Amino acid sequence: MKVHIIGIGLIGGSFALAMRAAFPETEIYGSDASEENLQKAKELKLIDQFSTTKELQDADVVFIAVPVNVATKVVSETLDKVGDQSLVLDAGSTKSGLCKAIANHKNRRNFLAAHPIAGTEFSGPQAAIPDLYRNKTNIICEVEKTAFRLQERALNIFQNLGMRIRYMDPVSHDRHIAYVSHLSHISSFMLGKTVLDKERNERDIFDLAGSGFESTVRLAKSSPAMWSPIFEENKENVLETLNEYINNLTHFKELIENEDFQEVYNEMQRTNHIKSILNGIN
Amino acid sequence: MKVHIIGIGLIGGSFALAMRAAFPETEIYGSDASEENLQKAKELKLIDQFSTTKELQDADVVFIAVPVNVATKVVSETLDKVGDQSLVLDAGSTKSGLCKAIANHKNRRNFLAAHPIAGTEFSGPQAAIPDLYRNKTNIICEVEKTAFRLQERALNIFQNLGMRIRYMDPVSHDRHIAYVSHLSHISSFMLGKTVLDKERNERDIFDLAGSGFESTVRLAKSSPAMWSPIFEENKENVLETLNEYINNLTHFKELIENEDFQEVYNEMQRTNHIKSILNGIN
Repeated sequence: MKVHIIGIGLIGGSFALAMRAAFPETEIYGSDASEENLQKAKELKLIDQFSTTKELQDADVVFIAVPVNVATKVVSETLDKVGDQSLVLDAGSTKSGLCKAIANHKNRRNFLAAHPIAGTEFSGPQAAIPDLYRNKTNIICEVEKTAFRLQERALNIFQNLGMRIRYMDPVSHDRHIAYVSHLSHISSFMLGKTVLDKERNERDIFDLAGSGFESTVRLAKSSPAMWSPIFEENKENVLETLNEYINNLTHFKELIENEDFQEVYNEMQRTNHIKSILNGIN
Repeated sequence: MKVHIIGIGLIGGSFALAMRAAFPETEIYGSDASEENLQKAKELKLIDQFSTTKELQDADVVFIAVPVNVATKVVSETLDKVGDQSLVLDAGSTKSGLCKAIANHKNRRNFLAAHPIAGTEFSGPQAAIPDLYRNKTNIICEVEKTAFRLQERALNIFQNLGMRIRYMDPVSHDRHIAYVSHLSHISSFMLGKTVLDKERNERDIFDLAGSGFESTVRLAKSSPAMWSPIFEENKENVLETLNEYINNLTHFKELIENEDFQEVYNEMQRTNHIKSILNGIN
């Protein structure tokens, strides 16, 4: 199987490693906007060779893992170049704009819009890990717009990578994912900022912070180059979640100001059953 | 060594397990406001027997791990009862109010105010783990107010449990800990609330949420009975952190509203170096 990966960082690189493990005969071609990342990916043996336009014609799979603000352009140009038998997949965290933009592309049926819910707070080819996708959810949007035989190829790949599949329309995807992913990143970045602004003497943070802080602020290590475009693409939904989050925090603050600690307790108690839901994750 | 533990949940129970491992000859006496917890602690062999007032006289160590709103009363009453040779420790997350309240107690020199930065999101005696304190920081306040020989006994215990010691005045402790611990809990609880309010169909959360959400919302599993009193005790500092956090979130929201994504990027970039600080934790 000839696999091209466009954007060979954490997401693309981990896909390369997983594909090699699941399909040992796979030849992997890579390209990246950064010459340095591309060289590193070759050194790390994530890819066998550099991808060229000519070879895209013969690709069995093209996996696109680029920041969401360039995804539409890259997907569209890739669809221009691939052959009839090529499956083009993306992995972006927003789906509405992309699906809309390529809706009328003549090769739309070669494309499958996907969002594997997988990642770490690290980035770049050196962050790639072979098991990133195992036991994770992959959200597929507008599956009916993909050619049957390419749907089948994609599902076979996802199954062999150990992923769960969920189908969803792109608008619902973007709305839900704003809550369970995009908002978490903002809450974490702003928590990090609040503490850093206060604690100029960083040694103090280090010494007093426990695993709870570490866990809550972990996502503030994420790549701004990846996340700024996501907030731009999913602006309306992100603003909605952020408004609700700020309102909830403000309400909680007022309860403390008014010394209504019974209701402070109740607020936490009502949220506490998130335990049973979270136990299902991972 | 005769050790009494008042409040035999996660914190007290883990102390029991750690003491048994470090000092095999230890006899452990326990008491708890909940008869059920106390029975469970006995069944789980966290404690050897129930603690009574009479035996407190002979205690070598009394470890008090109760919600901070009752800590002052419990510490004060314990100091009334213990013998000359007894060391009384607490483990609460707020220190100013307590230290002030017992400043003039006739047995003040038997007391050492401590805050081990250790915990999990679980609670109760069944949540106790033997290594909870290993490699964690223990903040000691007003060490000079404790009798020399009891300071020495306490340090010997903390060293044998594998803890790092930091000395701090109670006012600074409460201010710093509001940032690196108390605020994280509120941000996490309110994140959980925001998502739960939106996602009535809990199955959706389960399916779409990844490890990032899980990490950020983990502290929302914490015990409201423990945390509501902490927010009450540390009200002023908590309100300050919460105000700053809400301001930072509001500013970030406005940047998105104004489509200033360069500055959205910059905001995240400036916080990103938290990586290097967090790498020091754990």
